This record gives sequence, structure tokens and C-alpha cells, in this order.
Amino acid sequence: MTTHSRREVITAAAALAGVGASAQAATSGNAGTAGKATIPPVVHHVFFWLKNPKSKDDLARLLTGLRTLGGIETVKAIHIGVPAETEQRGVVDSSYSASEILFFDDVAGQNAYQVHPIHKKFVADCEHLWERVVVYDVKPAPTP
Amino acid sequence: MTTHSRREVITAAAALAGVGASAQAATSGNAGTAGKATIPPVVHHVFFWLKNPKSKDDLARLLTGLRTLGGIETVKAIHIGVPAETEQRGVVDSSYSASEILFFDDVAGQNAYQVHPIHKKFVADCEHLWERVVVYDVKPAPTP
Repeated sequence: MTTHSRREVITAAAALAGVGASAQAATSGNAGTAGKATIPPVVHHVFFWLKNPKSKDDLARLLTGLRTLGGIETVKAIHIGVPAETEQRGVVDSSYSASEILFFDDVAGQNAYQVHPIHKKFVADCEHLWERVVVYDVKPAPTP
Repeated sequence: MTTHSRREVITAAAALAGVGASAQAATSGNAGTAGKATIPPVVHHVFFWLKNPKSKDDLARLLTGLRTLGGIETVKAIHIGVPAETEQRGVVDSSYSASEILFFDDVAGQNAYQVHPIHKKFVADCEHLWERVVVYDVKPAPTP
């Protein structure tokens, strides 16, 4: 861990304390689970269906574009993925080509991302690749 | 894994401090994003639509049940949520009642979760509450 990283941890902790979000320790929307990884509270999960789902080149172009989104300041964590080889029960949708999960500290961070030049460039460069997009925006459930 | 241990130390320190923290190190499926939080690699994202979507009691029961899933050993992080108040563009699906995101180190961890007694109890206790479930299982995209 670098000094720079430590400072960022402290800054993030101070920011969360400043908005009274102490319940965000360990996990978001879930209390009493010591030892779990920290997940930033606001989740933006996007699924992409390619026009040419069998094109490895198109998938690679999309993934390359998606990875640029991690350069946006308000994006606190990023997970770029593809369907996992889990048991294909009826409720599992594995028809998508790529998954983008961005994590933010708050809805304002997600709003800033939407209009960020890096995001706009990604859409301009890659939107010809997909035929369908579904977005889910999630915030932590209220604690009981 | 060294990175994992370091993350747990950081998370434990943040928990002791009573605040959240943005951990650092590499992010799943995305290289070169220093300063981002660490996300375990395998993501299991489930959306629930309640039979009685306007029932706050039913939502509370479902959320209480979902929170128990954090007690399963292979669940490395958990995010229990509801729709966020983001701009309702056409591609955004905010019709669901609750969101469960579980993070695992690998697909084997997700498989172990599926048959865990805590998970089975959750389903037995709560399945009468929902009319529809959609599951997305995601693994990190291959790096270029």
C-alpha cells in the first residue's frame, strides 16, 4: 500500500463520515458482516447485447471502450465482465455479451459520469456495436 | 492471495474506525485504475419483483432475508439495494423491488452459496413474497 493510497482511504472515510454514512462500513446496505469487502454504495449495472454476438473483435472493442470508463473521477470501482459459467437455471439470464458495473459514492457521482467526456467518447465510439442495453441503478436499501 | 489479505486488513481497519473506506489496488476486469476500490471477481446480481410491490412490510421482510446471505462464508461482499433515483431514461429498468449483489472469489464459491443452508432458508422463508426473479452471473472479462 502506498502513502497515496492511505491518503485516499482517509479522504474517503472522512467524506463518508461527513455525510453520516457510517453504516457503510464493511458492506453497503448490510450490517454485521465483518470481514467482507467494501462496496461503494451506488451501483450502476449495464448489460450489453452485441449486434454481432459471435464477433470476438466486436466484443474486444466494446470491452476496451468499457475499460476507459474507469478513468472517470467519480467512478470509485469498476467491474467489466462477461457471463460466468454458473448453472443455467431458468431464472439466470446469460444472453448478454458484456456487463459493466460502476460504483459511486452517491447519485451525484453517477450523474457526473453520465455527462463526462470519457463516457461520451465511449458511447460515440462503441454504440454502433450493440443492439440493446439494459441499465439498473441501485442504492443501498434502508436499514431496518 | 496477498492482495486479498491486504484488502481484508484495510476493510477491518475501516470497520474498526466505524466508517467506510475506498480500498485500492487492481479492480476486477480492469487494469490500470489505481485508487479504485477492489471488487471480488465473480458477481451474482439478482433482481426481485414483489407480488405486492406497494407493501412496505413485504419489502422489509425480503430485505431482512437478503441480509442473512452475508453470513455465508464464500460471500466476500454483499450489496442489498433498491432502485436509485437516477434519471429515468428509456434504457433504465427501475421496476424491480429489491436488488441483491453477492461477490465471490470464484464460481466455486457461488456454487457453494447456492446449496448453503442459509440460502435455502432464505428461499423457503421468502419465496412467497416475489413473483419474478432475474439473475445475472458475471465474471471478469478477459484482459486484452
